[in-house]
Amino acid sequence: MRIEFQPIGVIRTPFTKTEGMPIQPTGAAGVKGTVEVFEEYRAGLKDLDGFSHIVLLYHFHRSHGFNLHVVPFMDSQLRGLFATRAPKRPNPIGLSVVQLDGIENGVLRVQNVDILDGTPLIDIKPYVPEFDVQPDVRTGWLEQARKTVHDRQADDRFR
Amino acid sequence: MRIEFQPIGVIRTPFTKTEGMPIQPTGAAGVKGTVEVFEEYRAGLKDLDGFSHIVLLYHFHRSHGFNLHVVPFMDSQLRGLFATRAPKRPNPIGLSVVQLDGIENGVLRVQNVDILDGTPLIDIKPYVPEFDVQPDVRTGWLEQARKTVHDRQADDRFR
Repeated sequence: MRIEFQPIGVIRTPFTKTEGMPIQPTGAAGVKGTVEVFEEYRAGLKDLDGFSHIVLLYHFHRSHGFNLHVVPFMDSQLRGLFATRAPKRPNPIGLSVVQLDGIENGVLRVQNVDILDGTPLIDIKPYVPEFDVQPDVRTGWLEQARKTVHDRQADDRFR
Repeated sequence: MRIEFQPIGVIRTPFTKTEGMPIQPTGAAGVKGTVEVFEEYRAGLKDLDGFSHIVLLYHFHRSHGFNLHVVPFMDSQLRGLFATRAPKRPNPIGLSVVQLDGIENGVLRVQNVDILDGTPLIDIKPYVPEFDVQPDVRTGWLEQARKTVHDRQADDRFR
């Protein structure tokens, strides 16, 4: 069985290549970008401007193939792919929570983008703490590493 | 341009029909399910058991078509589709943060599932507060409604 999706817009950011990119929105604090929603979908943006943060789902369009074991940017050991956020996945879908600064004519101004310029947008969802935030969380191998994410950058290992 | 995905597993839950389902994991507290990852992808589950919570991306396989304006379960007014988590979307991808209780032979035991039985799994990502949690959040039309999500259930409006 195959599932077909098609882009509903495109994400514009200062990052034209993977090397040197922040790894996650937390490492991209203050980095501004835009999300251009195609005209036919713009009516669906009504009421979105009431939300301070949104979830972007997008296609890792520069990722090809995948390995089930990878050495993540934030580690030096092989980890199971699904225990990482690496872009080369069986279904290469990216997920980022970004800050929404405003919407004009189908263009969303966003902040804290850790996304490549030209990335195809798949979906936008409102970010809702009651749905998306969990208390008492354990984060396995990332427990130590995640505290340093602000200082780390991507390289070309997942091209 | 079209993007093709294919299921990497299937989600098993007590919910065989939409009516009466919880709306979000917060409304499904304690509801147990399993995520069966297909054999060819199981090696990618290594290290995942260190995480207490995971993000599931899945295909809303029972949703067909979409409207850009919808009346959400939690409201009585028409809202822009992208300001809601309604399942009928241009690209019907669902996102739930669930609790991970254990992994045996490629089967994940999860809790707080608000997902239909038989739902095709698209991706698993580790849930990491540093990436996924935002402070100082505004949630627009949901600001009042979200406090009551625990008590609300789905009906068949998005079938």
